[in-house]
Amino acid sequence: MNIKHDSRPIGIFDSGVGGLTVLKELIRTFPNEHFIYLGDTARVPYGAKSARTVERYTIQVADFLIRHNVKGLIAACNTASALGLGALRAHCDTPVLGVIQPGCQQAMNRIRSHNDQVGVIGTTSTIASGAYPQTLATFEPRLKVRSLACPLFVPLVDEGWIDHPATRLIVEENLAPFIENPVDVLILGCTHYPVLKPVIAKIIGSKTKLIDSAEAVADSLAVLLSQVILPAPSDTRQKVDFYVTDVADRFKHLAGRFLDGYRVDNVEMVDL
Amino acid sequence: MNIKHDSRPIGIFDSGVGGLTVLKELIRTFPNEHFIYLGDTARVPYGAKSARTVERYTIQVADFLIRHNVKGLIAACNTASALGLGALRAHCDTPVLGVIQPGCQQAMNRIRSHNDQVGVIGTTSTIASGAYPQTLATFEPRLKVRSLACPLFVPLVDEGWIDHPATRLIVEENLAPFIENPVDVLILGCTHYPVLKPVIAKIIGSKTKLIDSAEAVADSLAVLLSQVILPAPSDTRQKVDFYVTDVADRFKHLAGRFLDGYRVDNVEMVDL
Repeated sequence: MNIKHDSRPIGIFDSGVGGLTVLKELIRTFPNEHFIYLGDTARVPYGAKSARTVERYTIQVADFLIRHNVKGLIAACNTASALGLGALRAHCDTPVLGVIQPGCQQAMNRIRSHNDQVGVIGTTSTIASGAYPQTLATFEPRLKVRSLACPLFVPLVDEGWIDHPATRLIVEENLAPFIENPVDVLILGCTHYPVLKPVIAKIIGSKTKLIDSAEAVADSLAVLLSQVILPAPSDTRQKVDFYVTDVADRFKHLAGRFLDGYRVDNVEMVDL
Repeated sequence: MNIKHDSRPIGIFDSGVGGLTVLKELIRTFPNEHFIYLGDTARVPYGAKSARTVERYTIQVADFLIRHNVKGLIAACNTASALGLGALRAHCDTPVLGVIQPGCQQAMNRIRSHNDQVGVIGTTSTIASGAYPQTLATFEPRLKVRSLACPLFVPLVDEGWIDHPATRLIVEENLAPFIENPVDVLILGCTHYPVLKPVIAKIIGSKTKLIDSAEAVADSLAVLLSQVILPAPSDTRQKVDFYVTDVADRFKHLAGRFLDGYRVDNVEMVDL
């Protein structure tokens, strides 16, 4: 059997550090791939910005990765996936994977019937885009989806207020509609939110299943590597290159929190 | 007596909406001036970004205002004032007023002797720059200055969590060093913070005087208009033009909160 391979890197991008929760899962799952991660830390966050601006930034960021000869692109940012993916796919021929489709797929695997209630939380722009309910409707039009913007979760994670009484108060107040009237499945529709998973799980209760799109993206990438793009040779050693658009120090510091101790040595700063 | 006038506008800029606390004071104080406000809402916030990036953005933003033929520039953002003002002054001939010098001047007016303790709170980048202690030292080298970064205050204000128990918890924890060991004067070194003034005042206690740089900037502009640039003719009606780098809707919504009901009608979006 003649198995073909492709040693070119896979590009993964985010507005900043949130996409590292996705990268962590990819590092764990694909020991032979070469990843290039680009965090747009000069213009972070995307979560309250318009479709027009997010589209423009998404294409600039993707173009940088395309110039690095990537075989595939992963938008590891829900806001970029919700607002920028259409424009990006029209702009380039490189296969692009977002985080919304995989997250919705995983939510669908966890519901028992269309009578189950699905909740989605995300940034203001992701929720306003309606991308989650629209994507879920392509799987099951009868599904009832309730969406909530939780704009303070990202700064809380970025500043390390992970398990603080103030964080619990904010999570409680933001998720009140899902506490009073529980959903069966709750999609964490922002790559920062998995860091708050323990707090959210405690507040929301054990009856609601939490969907973390990072795991779902790894599953989707496995499918992509078997069907659309070719995997790296199995004797290749995994490699990750990091790029940021603002100075690297703060990124390095935060990356430790997101990658659970994975060593982030060489982070290069680039202008887009 | 032959009084000369200059009808050209005064440019005022900020990373987003924070500078509106300064503009509010200018609107109140200068009934004949024409102001052009530019909020860099596509790249907001500046507060955790590097000097290199903030310098670059500050110059781009100022260049836009200079093309609008302004007679003076006001950096109504502490982070831009702390990190970008040196580069901006080297870049252009237009007189530039920052918020740090006026805030320090006002703090100096409020202390009784060099034994008084001065506190400064601001964004991560403003505090890391050391701009406040350095400027205060030019007034009084013996002064003891204690600085604290409060990075969550900006998102709390932007999301309207002004008087919430979670906000009080975060303010309490951030300002703990100034509660345990009080300062005589506390400089609110970020243009967002005046919105939290009532909460901060309640937590910090009545013995500490709070310095809001917005009022100080209005005083400094009055000096500038009498000594460096010329005021508008006294029969001119005040006018404010608003520009933003991302779509205007969110800005309009937030502007109401900052300007206490001043009508923000025409907001134009521009690419820098």
